[in-house]
Amino acid sequence: MIYVAVLGYGTVGSGVVEVIDRNNSIVSANSGDEMQVKYILDLRDFPGDPNESKVIHDVDVILNDPDVSIVCETMGGVGAAYKFTKAALEKGKSVVTSNKELVAKHGAELMKVARDNGCAYLFEASVGGGIPVIRTIITALTAERITQIAGILNGTTNFILTRMEEDGADFADTLKKAQELGYAEADPTADIEGHDTARKISILADIMSGHFVDSDNISAEGITHISGDDIAEASKAGYRIRLLGIANRYDDDSVSAMVAPFLVKKGHPLAGVCDVFNAIFVTGNMLDETMYYGKGAGKLATASAVVADVIDAAVKGTSCKYTGWDETPVSSAAGCDSYRYMVRCSAGSTDEIKASLSGAEAVSDTVLFTGKMTDSQYADLKNRFGEKIANGIRIYE
Amino acid sequence: MIYVAVLGYGTVGSGVVEVIDRNNSIVSANSGDEMQVKYILDLRDFPGDPNESKVIHDVDVILNDPDVSIVCETMGGVGAAYKFTKAALEKGKSVVTSNKELVAKHGAELMKVARDNGCAYLFEASVGGGIPVIRTIITALTAERITQIAGILNGTTNFILTRMEEDGADFADTLKKAQELGYAEADPTADIEGHDTARKISILADIMSGHFVDSDNISAEGITHISGDDIAEASKAGYRIRLLGIANRYDDDSVSAMVAPFLVKKGHPLAGVCDVFNAIFVTGNMLDETMYYGKGAGKLATASAVVADVIDAAVKGTSCKYTGWDETPVSSAAGCDSYRYMVRCSAGSTDEIKASLSGAEAVSDTVLFTGKMTDSQYADLKNRFGEKIANGIRIYE
Repeated sequence: MIYVAVLGYGTVGSGVVEVIDRNNSIVSANSGDEMQVKYILDLRDFPGDPNESKVIHDVDVILNDPDVSIVCETMGGVGAAYKFTKAALEKGKSVVTSNKELVAKHGAELMKVARDNGCAYLFEASVGGGIPVIRTIITALTAERITQIAGILNGTTNFILTRMEEDGADFADTLKKAQELGYAEADPTADIEGHDTARKISILADIMSGHFVDSDNISAEGITHISGDDIAEASKAGYRIRLLGIANRYDDDSVSAMVAPFLVKKGHPLAGVCDVFNAIFVTGNMLDETMYYGKGAGKLATASAVVADVIDAAVKGTSCKYTGWDETPVSSAAGCDSYRYMVRCSAGSTDEIKASLSGAEAVSDTVLFTGKMTDSQYADLKNRFGEKIANGIRIYE
Repeated sequence: MIYVAVLGYGTVGSGVVEVIDRNNSIVSANSGDEMQVKYILDLRDFPGDPNESKVIHDVDVILNDPDVSIVCETMGGVGAAYKFTKAALEKGKSVVTSNKELVAKHGAELMKVARDNGCAYLFEASVGGGIPVIRTIITALTAERITQIAGILNGTTNFILTRMEEDGADFADTLKKAQELGYAEADPTADIEGHDTARKISILADIMSGHFVDSDNISAEGITHISGDDIAEASKAGYRIRLLGIANRYDDDSVSAMVAPFLVKKGHPLAGVCDVFNAIFVTGNMLDETMYYGKGAGKLATASAVVADVIDAAVKGTSCKYTGWDETPVSSAAGCDSYRYMVRCSAGSTDEIKASLSGAEAVSDTVLFTGKMTDSQYADLKNRFGEKIANGIRIYE
């Protein structure tokens, strides 16, 4: 028997219990032994819940029970989650998680603790929910030098951008709609300001480079300044706007990572990713382009990814060398990437702005497409023309 | 040192040599030891080729060299490829391949020979070229009951269908263009009649079900009967036409597999897969929908997938239990699937045909969308109305 403990009986945690229960014959067959959830740790009680009897409030019961070999941390945050994860790993119990914040912040350390104690720290569900992108990069793209990862990694913002385009609505109304539908939280800051995407692209950049890419150092631009006019002008020019996390790896092994809204050409697979779906576009030096698409969030999809990690931990046991990056920050090429921009100009200033740029072309009276510019070159332009520039958005190509 | 032998120095074989050479530091690091190609088996000589000295003509040199632990079979066909593969596995050498025909026909037997001799038979590159779909299904979707796999698995036909739509061209001219560009072979039968897709979907159905699904028993309808009018009418109704291989798994574990052109709603991720790209759409009972997209063919993309398998064989050695299905044919649900059809009618017969069907709706003077029909129900309709039905194409939904 394989006994599992689940920390946190929220959306993902209750999904994990449900997947292990509903797909028990498949999960057990793939694990090589019958799998069962023994404890559910939560501060709350759940009277009437079918798993009521498994709910406990003291993590030490789990840590001190030698029967429990695998712990699912689905609490979130970097406080108790960090403490409990480290304690479980130190007891030789493998920990699997959907907690992107903790992985982005302390992943390197926790993987080392796991290695030192003959167990595993796995986190497929921390990026892209149900999309198996981490395992794919680590176990399938092994003959590749990956040069770029570009992802739609946040369902809330992708839903808002899709709806703004399809319904011709503005940002505020669409955010409200997303909140009503449960696709955006009451405090949507982490999503709409790009912080959630920054954490996820930092984890992918860690894996791509083998070194620590601190999500706090990633420049993150959200979608709050994207207007209906931006989306309409982009669409007229043959593009959709998508919030992308992009990590580039250069020949000298330096890495850049950033989050921003981008114009993506209609017809590019990332432009076809709509509503709450996520997708990760990976470019390798031999494979060229591959993309992995699916539900980036949601109870059962995320839980399925958590349980796949539980199965891996069960099967491989102490030999589960899943991945690793060291705690040394990678040499940063942040700010070196250059992109073309779509610049929306106020009436009458298009010619003046165009004249100040080499390689810019006017696509309408109020819209310019610039040549390639770095972040600081664009900041200079924006400073120089102030209000005459309504908005500038990078072009992904 | 890990010594590899490559059987067949054609497109994929030469790509394998190139990937191992160009990405040697990555490939060696991921394999745990330096990897080198020791022999290249081919009937031809390659005077002036940088690998000329490695070319041999006698397979026994490879079979009898204990240094060679991994063999890449990139010859194709089921004759010598089968014989050499079996002989290598019997010597305890792992074999990796891109040979879909051999895997579809003799995969179960060859995997058993591998297991019996403590080595592995791996075939990621046999389906979807550079798209790591087999490894993903086997190692990542382990908590799922997969209920459907639907794939665009053939680049030639997807190129033809994309170009017919975008250029408004007919089938014959577009096929000629594909041949000129090297995207279609001089004898394109296996591609355009759906046989290539049938082999690939049979392998995916094998993996999904754990039993043998004989590609020879899969009903395969190609794209030769798709006209510019079909594509135009589908487009007007909001659909694109794509050649899909579809495998369904039912609650009673019976499986159906078939190949046919389908109408796919614009906006569905499979509709956005254009030109020679491939994609595999996998539906699971918890994950819901995921899709894997990339180059379905091409020298380096396919070779990258072959080399990923070489690395797996090198790392896992005798413990490389990759997958397996038994030789017992699965219970077949072929012919039980039902689909709506777009039926193009000759002028004046739309009303008559519509009246004979329950649940059909006319979308124009000459186009009907039917209710769900099985293959035999549609065949009855077609028999009954003969020439009055110009074409009928299933709708994927």
